[in-house]
Amino acid sequence: MREAESPYLLFLGDARDELSIKGATGVRIWRPDKARAQIRLAGCNQDLGLPDMTTREAADAGCRTMLVGVANAGGFIPDHWSTTIIEALEAGLDVMAGMHTRLADIPAIAEAARRHGRTLHDVRQSTREFSVGKGTPRSGRRLLTVGTDSSLGKMFTSLAIEREMHDRGMKATFRATGQSGIFIAGSGIAVDGVVADFISGAVEWLAPANDPDHWDIIEGQGSLFHPSFAGVSLGLLHGAQAEALVMCHEPTRAHMRGLPGRSLPPLRHCIEANERMARLTAPDARVVAISINTSAFAEEEAHREIATTAAEHDLPCGDPVRHGAAFIVDALAP
Amino acid sequence: MREAESPYLLFLGDARDELSIKGATGVRIWRPDKARAQIRLAGCNQDLGLPDMTTREAADAGCRTMLVGVANAGGFIPDHWSTTIIEALEAGLDVMAGMHTRLADIPAIAEAARRHGRTLHDVRQSTREFSVGKGTPRSGRRLLTVGTDSSLGKMFTSLAIEREMHDRGMKATFRATGQSGIFIAGSGIAVDGVVADFISGAVEWLAPANDPDHWDIIEGQGSLFHPSFAGVSLGLLHGAQAEALVMCHEPTRAHMRGLPGRSLPPLRHCIEANERMARLTAPDARVVAISINTSAFAEEEAHREIATTAAEHDLPCGDPVRHGAAFIVDALAP
Repeated sequence: MREAESPYLLFLGDARDELSIKGATGVRIWRPDKARAQIRLAGCNQDLGLPDMTTREAADAGCRTMLVGVANAGGFIPDHWSTTIIEALEAGLDVMAGMHTRLADIPAIAEAARRHGRTLHDVRQSTREFSVGKGTPRSGRRLLTVGTDSSLGKMFTSLAIEREMHDRGMKATFRATGQSGIFIAGSGIAVDGVVADFISGAVEWLAPANDPDHWDIIEGQGSLFHPSFAGVSLGLLHGAQAEALVMCHEPTRAHMRGLPGRSLPPLRHCIEANERMARLTAPDARVVAISINTSAFAEEEAHREIATTAAEHDLPCGDPVRHGAAFIVDALAP
Repeated sequence: MREAESPYLLFLGDARDELSIKGATGVRIWRPDKARAQIRLAGCNQDLGLPDMTTREAADAGCRTMLVGVANAGGFIPDHWSTTIIEALEAGLDVMAGMHTRLADIPAIAEAARRHGRTLHDVRQSTREFSVGKGTPRSGRRLLTVGTDSSLGKMFTSLAIEREMHDRGMKATFRATGQSGIFIAGSGIAVDGVVADFISGAVEWLAPANDPDHWDIIEGQGSLFHPSFAGVSLGLLHGAQAEALVMCHEPTRAHMRGLPGRSLPPLRHCIEANERMARLTAPDARVVAISINTSAFAEEEAHREIATTAAEHDLPCGDPVRHGAAFIVDALAP
């Protein structure tokens, strides 16, 4: 995939919750220089604190690409979004999206792009051919973020670790495995869009052998305990061949994402299962730290939750959003 | 995929070894009523003991579909096969194949199918859109074959269980998840060709809610301990939501298929891991029996191996090829 041109107009659709715009939010936080404006449809109650612009205003303000940085269940592009996407193309913007439905497969959008000479970036679909994973030991150091559920901070934690490593002068590369991460990194593989046979092989390709002192910080996906996505999580775990796992958790979440009535697995089971399964390809793999998403708590409560979790599991624990990722990098073997 | 119409004309191409016609052989063994005739090109030294017919003779004899049940290195369709495939379409037959190259992507074949109003079944590629798996409890009874490795008897064991159930007057349906199984069943989903996000959802679609006394016998794929394919195996396990698992094993195999140097996991670990992971969506899931592939042993040795394994794991154990699948069906809760 060719890298999308920036700056971006961030399309938030009619999003009504924070989680569904995490693609756009990620760019806003991690690549603020690229996030110039936002565009929202009727019903949207989210706000990234950027100037609201029409597609035409954004083009006039220098934006080069409209980023459809919003997800909906199933990954389809609703008809009423297409209208704005076509307007963006007409205004001279490229469009980048990460849905299962490709922009290029929607005839009206494909036709508009052709007519106006614009580029469509479908980041979820990789056109590259992968090999099946082999599990052969490779050089370099690797860390993978894993989780009790989907969408609770694995990408954010990974980016915070990369930033902390760079601040310390360490060699580190964030490896994006989902569309939001790809929006931020500018490259990567959406592993849930890969043909099932090649999940682990795609991750071996994404995080290849490297210098002995170089860290790949690999963004995890889903959860071994999520009935929709566990296959992806396991393929990722095996392909990553990571010596260090960071367990990500959100302590107040009432049920697995998208599955009312299904509670999250106990943190302890999740740690054990990830370590056990990871050791198939990384015999020394272990969970080195717990990353807690404390967004639901006030500062005081957050500290209490972190302290309790750290004591219960005898592992370094913290919230990278509040306090950075130093506690994780400190926990790595030298 | 719509079910292919039978009976079949089995196309053996110019096959010179047994392994390359295993797709056709499977149909001959497990669906003898569907296997009416065979067609062989110059150079073929294989014989399924069926009448040799031209495509025209086969159509006149009532065949409805020509099954390209032969594999060649590379998974493409040689030009000299296309001639016969087009003749089959002209004679009024549908054509089913399971190659990486789709019949529908070969212009001359696609055009002939269109001209004669025939259907092309490309079983390796699913064109259907699936939902993500939900893990919601569903009615009906389900059994899944799992394994220590790929390619050691999961399909054969599944078909033997279905046959035994039918012999006992039980309601049972074999659910195919690989191309050979799909040739035999006439329908199914090649799960390793599904987009990773939809592995479990595809299996939920393949084996939907059913009568309380109906058994789906779901063909497993790969192994939780195979670094190339474990993601597929886990998605299948979660989507199957099977109360009964049958562990398939080949005791003499020196290494995981395709991975010299990587030994098979201990049977006990494999049983434990499958039960533990299966319980996410099927809380009562348990391994009810062990299916041993004893093809490497003489009769005496085979019996010894089976007795030893049964005693060691305290589970019913046998080789369905030698002795049928009664020991498995006997082990199921009434």
